[in-house]
Amino acid sequence: MGKQKQGSNYVEEITKMEQDFSQWYTDVVLKAELADYGMVKGCMAIKPYGFQIWEQIRAGLNERLMATGHQNVYLPILIPESLLNKEKEHVEGFAPEVAWVTIGGEKELEERLCIRPTSETLFSTMFAKWVNSWRDLPLLYNQWGNVVRWEKSTRPFLRTAEFLWQEGHTVHATAEESAAETQKILNLYSDYAEKVLAIPVIKGRKTEQEKFAGAVNTYTIEAMMHDGQALQAGTSHNFGQNFSIPFEIKYQNKAGKMEYCWQTSWGVTTRLIGGIIMVHGDNRGLVLPPRVAPVQVILVPIAGHKTGVLKKCQEVLQELRNLYRVIIDDRDNYSPGWKFNQWEMKGVPLRLEIGPRDIIHEQVVLVRRDTGEKEVVKIEQLKEQIGSKLADIQNSLFQKALEKREKRTYRAEQLKDFKKIIAKETGFIKGMLCGNKECEEKMKEITRTTVRCIPFEQEKLSERCICCGGAAGEMAIFARAY
Amino acid sequence: MGKQKQGSNYVEEITKMEQDFSQWYTDVVLKAELADYGMVKGCMAIKPYGFQIWEQIRAGLNERLMATGHQNVYLPILIPESLLNKEKEHVEGFAPEVAWVTIGGEKELEERLCIRPTSETLFSTMFAKWVNSWRDLPLLYNQWGNVVRWEKSTRPFLRTAEFLWQEGHTVHATAEESAAETQKILNLYSDYAEKVLAIPVIKGRKTEQEKFAGAVNTYTIEAMMHDGQALQAGTSHNFGQNFSIPFEIKYQNKAGKMEYCWQTSWGVTTRLIGGIIMVHGDNRGLVLPPRVAPVQVILVPIAGHKTGVLKKCQEVLQELRNLYRVIIDDRDNYSPGWKFNQWEMKGVPLRLEIGPRDIIHEQVVLVRRDTGEKEVVKIEQLKEQIGSKLADIQNSLFQKALEKREKRTYRAEQLKDFKKIIAKETGFIKGMLCGNKECEEKMKEITRTTVRCIPFEQEKLSERCICCGGAAGEMAIFARAY
Repeated sequence: MGKQKQGSNYVEEITKMEQDFSQWYTDVVLKAELADYGMVKGCMAIKPYGFQIWEQIRAGLNERLMATGHQNVYLPILIPESLLNKEKEHVEGFAPEVAWVTIGGEKELEERLCIRPTSETLFSTMFAKWVNSWRDLPLLYNQWGNVVRWEKSTRPFLRTAEFLWQEGHTVHATAEESAAETQKILNLYSDYAEKVLAIPVIKGRKTEQEKFAGAVNTYTIEAMMHDGQALQAGTSHNFGQNFSIPFEIKYQNKAGKMEYCWQTSWGVTTRLIGGIIMVHGDNRGLVLPPRVAPVQVILVPIAGHKTGVLKKCQEVLQELRNLYRVIIDDRDNYSPGWKFNQWEMKGVPLRLEIGPRDIIHEQVVLVRRDTGEKEVVKIEQLKEQIGSKLADIQNSLFQKALEKREKRTYRAEQLKDFKKIIAKETGFIKGMLCGNKECEEKMKEITRTTVRCIPFEQEKLSERCICCGGAAGEMAIFARAY
Repeated sequence: MGKQKQGSNYVEEITKMEQDFSQWYTDVVLKAELADYGMVKGCMAIKPYGFQIWEQIRAGLNERLMATGHQNVYLPILIPESLLNKEKEHVEGFAPEVAWVTIGGEKELEERLCIRPTSETLFSTMFAKWVNSWRDLPLLYNQWGNVVRWEKSTRPFLRTAEFLWQEGHTVHATAEESAAETQKILNLYSDYAEKVLAIPVIKGRKTEQEKFAGAVNTYTIEAMMHDGQALQAGTSHNFGQNFSIPFEIKYQNKAGKMEYCWQTSWGVTTRLIGGIIMVHGDNRGLVLPPRVAPVQVILVPIAGHKTGVLKKCQEVLQELRNLYRVIIDDRDNYSPGWKFNQWEMKGVPLRLEIGPRDIIHEQVVLVRRDTGEKEVVKIEQLKEQIGSKLADIQNSLFQKALEKREKRTYRAEQLKDFKKIIAKETGFIKGMLCGNKECEEKMKEITRTTVRCIPFEQEKLSERCICCGGAAGEMAIFARAY
C-alpha cells in the first residue's frame, strides 16, 4: 500500500525470450499495458498505451494517404450474403472465416449478413453507383475501421477475431493506372515500415497460392521477427477487372464507349504493433522506435520532495514539450527505480533524470532504452542532445533489425541444403522455384515453411527448381510465418 | 460531356424545405455528397465530404476529451449474451434492437454474440479486472467506434442501423466524482455544440421514462431543428453503482476496505451531422459553420484560361492556406456558375472569386454562403477580412438558430393551451409536470410529444401539473423529436 520498494521485481516477471518466445510476447503485451484479453474468444481489449501506438500509426499513415490524394469514407459493417457471393474466389477465400448475423431486432433475417472480413464487395457495389464517366476516375478511397475474421488460433495484435485496420479501395480507368497504384501503395507501406517503425521489409509478389482471394496479383512487405519467423506487414492487391465485371463497375470513356474499370485494394492492421514488439523488444520489455513512440522522453524526478526538483523538472518539461513527446512521471507513491523499470517495460526511447545534484551542476542524466547507455548532459545542450539521440536510436534500431535479418537469411540450392538449414535455424531461406504450384505445395508439406514472396530483388541462385529440379523460374523467400 | 452550361439546374433539383422538409433533408444529404444509401437496410455509406465533417467533429471533441484527462481505448465489437444480460434494465432496453451473431467460422456458436449497441457491459467486465485499489481511480476511458442498433425506420445520419460515435466510460471512487464527471461532460458537449457547431442547446435531465437503460440519471443536450422538432444531440449518464454491483467492480479504499465503484458513460454520434444540416441548411443546400467546415473558403478562378488568373489564384491560395482551410476549384470542365452552385450546395462558408479585372485592381470578390452577401476586398486586406467574416458567419449562424428556437418555444399552463399550440405549431413547449410517470405517458398519447428534458434552467409557469392538475414538481420541455 505504501511506497514501492526500489528495485521491486517488476521486470523479472517477464519470461526471457530465449526461453519461451511466445510467452515473452504475451508477457510484453500484458506488462507494457498494451492490451488485455477480452471477453470474447480471440478478441482483445486495447488499453490506452497500446491504443496510443495505434493512433500514432494511424496518423502517420493517414497523412501519407491524404498527401497522395486519397480520401476517407465509411461503408457499413454488414454485408448481405448475396453480395459476398458475387465474386467466386473471394467468397471461397472468406466465407469459411466470417461471422454471420442471422437475427436482427428479435426477428430471423430473410438474408443473413456477415460482419465484414474485408470490404471489396461493399465498395464495388457503391462504385457501380458512383462511377459513370471517365471524369469520375480515379476514385481513391480509404477506410479506417474494424473487421472480423473467425480465426482458430489467435494472439493479441498478431491474429485476432476482430482487428483494426485501414483498407484502401481504388477505381481506375486503365490497367496501367491500377498497376501503378498497387505499387505506389506498396512503396508507401514499405517506406513507413522502414522509416517510422524501423522495421526492414522485403517487397515482393505473393504466389498464386498465397495471393488475396479475388486478386490478380498481391504484393506484400515481409518482415523478420526476433525468432526468425516472418510477419506479413502489409499487402496491396491489383484486382484488374475481377470485381468490376461481376459488380458491373463501368465508365464511359472519352470516346463515349462503356468500359469496365480497374481496381485495387490494400491494407495494414493492428498487427503492425505485434511486429514492433517482436522486432525491437528485449528481455526488459517493449522497445519503441522514437518516431512511433507515444512518449519519446520520460522525465523522472529524483528525490522529488527536495526543494527545487519538481520546479526544475517542470521548467525542462515546458522547454521540451513543443519539440518532443515528453511527459513527467511525478507520482509520489512510486520510487524512481520502480518508475525506471516501468518505463523501460513500456519501451520509452529516452529517460531523463533530474535530481538535486543535477540542478546544482545544471545538468541532467539521459538514459537510452535500447542500449542502456547513460550520459550526463548540460541543460543548455539538452534540446539538441535529445534530438540527436532520438535520431540515433531510430537509426540504430533499424540497423540492428536489418543485420539480424541478414544474418538469419539463408540460401539453398537443393532440397537437402534447405532441410539442413531448417533443422537448425529459423529464418528466411532463399530458393529457386519453377513456378508450378505442386512444388510450392510440396515445399510446404516437407519443410513447414511457406513462400513469403517472390521478392522484387531477384538473384539467380541456380538454374534449377529447389523442389523438382526443373528449370527455375524465380527466386522465392521461404519462412515460417505468423 | 463538354463544358456544363452556366446556370444549369443544379440547385433547382432540391425540394424546398417548406414544401417537404423530410425530402429536403434527403436531397441535401445526397446532393451535397455527404452520404448515400448502403446495401443493407438502414445502413449508410458516408462519402468523403460527409466523412470530412465527421473527422472535424471527431478531432475537435477528441482534443477536448484528451485535454480533460480522458484516454482512448478499443474494446471488442461482440458481446456474449450472458454479459449483456447482467444488468436487468440495460438488457431490457437494448435486447429488442440488437443484431445477433449465431454462426462463426461455419459453426453454430454455443453462445450467441450481439454486435455492441453500446459497450457498458464490456467496459464493466474489463473494469472489474483493471480496478483494484483507490490508486487506480478514476479511469477515464473513451472509445471511437461503430455500433449497431436494429432500428425500424431509419434516416441517414439521424437514425441508422449502424452509426459512428464516441462512447466514454469512467469509473470513480465516490458518488460525488461520478456526478461531477457526468456534468463536466454535459458541459463539454454543450460548449462544443454551441461554439463549434453553432447549435444552441438546452441542458437538462431526462425523465425516468426517457433515461438510458441502466442509468440512475441521464442528462441531455436538446437542439431544435428548422421544422421545430427536437434532436437529442448528446447524452451523459450517471450509473451510480448500477453496473458496478452486478459486474463486481470493487476497489480497496485508503482504509483498506473494499467498496463498489461509481460509473458514468456518455456519447455523441454521427447524428450531429444531421443536426448541422437541419439547423443551418437552406433551400440552396447545406450551410456549414466555419469552425466545423472541412473547407472554409472555396477559391474559384473566373476566366481561368486568361493570362495570370490561375497564377494569381495560386499566390492567394499559398498565402491563405496556413490560416484557413481553403482549396481551389480549378476544374476546367465546369463553368464558374456551376461551381458556385455546387459549393453552395456543399455549404462552404466563403467563396472567393478572382478574375482578370480583379487582378488589375488588386482585389477579389468574397461571397458569404449564409447571407449571399457579396463584397469586393483588396488583396492586401484579404487575410483579415476572411478571418473576421468567418467569425461573423459563425456567430450569426448561432444567433439565427437561437432566435428561431426562442420564437418557436411556447409555454402552456393548461392542457387545452398545449393542445391549441400543437394544433398550429411545431416547437418546444414548456409545461409543468407533477413527476408521475402516468402524466408523462398520458401527455405522450394525447399530444404525440415527448418530454425532451427537465431543463436545468427552471421556470415556475404555474403551481399545477399540466396533465393531472396536481401539485407541479418541475418544468418540462415537450416536443416532437427525431
